[in-house]
Amino acid sequence: MQPFGELPVIQDGDFILYESRAIMRYYAEKYRSQGTELLGKTIEERGLVEQWLEVEAHNYNPAIYELTIQLLFSSKFGRPVDEKLVKESDEKLGKTLDVYEERLSKSKYLAGDFFSLADLSHIPFTHYLVGPMGRQHMIRDRKHVSAWWDDISNRPSWKKVLELCKTPFG
Amino acid sequence: MQPFGELPVIQDGDFILYESRAIMRYYAEKYRSQGTELLGKTIEERGLVEQWLEVEAHNYNPAIYELTIQLLFSSKFGRPVDEKLVKESDEKLGKTLDVYEERLSKSKYLAGDFFSLADLSHIPFTHYLVGPMGRQHMIRDRKHVSAWWDDISNRPSWKKVLELCKTPFG
Repeated sequence: MQPFGELPVIQDGDFILYESRAIMRYYAEKYRSQGTELLGKTIEERGLVEQWLEVEAHNYNPAIYELTIQLLFSSKFGRPVDEKLVKESDEKLGKTLDVYEERLSKSKYLAGDFFSLADLSHIPFTHYLVGPMGRQHMIRDRKHVSAWWDDISNRPSWKKVLELCKTPFG
Repeated sequence: MQPFGELPVIQDGDFILYESRAIMRYYAEKYRSQGTELLGKTIEERGLVEQWLEVEAHNYNPAIYELTIQLLFSSKFGRPVDEKLVKESDEKLGKTLDVYEERLSKSKYLAGDFFSLADLSHIPFTHYLVGPMGRQHMIRDRKHVSAWWDDISNRPSWKKVLELCKTPFG
């Protein structure tokens, strides 16, 4: 179903879609009238949601994804850890979190004073970061990032996800 | 204005936005009622526009961007070309274009039978590919990609852009 051989792919009735961030946007749009407005109420808010979704995709994710591969998957599959890559990824993620700290000192959430898809997209990998990756200090050493993480990771919807889905690393 | 020190950044009145694909979506949304509908008419169409925007960002762009750096910028600034990287990028772009060829054999444009932001986002780098990079064959050897490129690169709006902006490589 996915010509690049990648996951995830969803099927909603006879509608098939791939690319995780396209899937998130699709469901947020489809159920826009239910629950929290995740895409912003105005064109400017939507613009900022999109901006921070791109920041997650191009700055946050590459570093935290590499750490996940190295620290969790390598050990699970008995492969050696690339310590140089771990060091570079730690530095890159730290610099990105410094920008987040500055941003979150001015607004409660990334795109403004409203919880959005941009915040939500950070939850799964950050859950690994502060848990099995043992890098809680990266969040806790930054006051505003720390408060933001407490807020977004304690939302009932995320707790429900954790109840329903067993993640591979607990 | 951009905490990661990157370009582009736009200022629209007192609204500041960065990340190129967030900027594109913002202007497409803002001027949605004028000219071509670039974001799709239904939630499903929008989903497919987003999917192909993500494919451009994660499959097409990394390869064509690397080729641009190696083939155009390196020679312009007198740096040696990394031939191994060029070979890898050519292969990666070729594989991506094979997926496009299959897709475009079934629909006129990437997201369906309507021109969208997903097609538009391919134009600038592909313009370099078929021009100064001398890789016209990558497009011309694929029948449906070739017809798609003729279509999207001959739109009056793109011709206007080329009239107004001198690009660094002609």
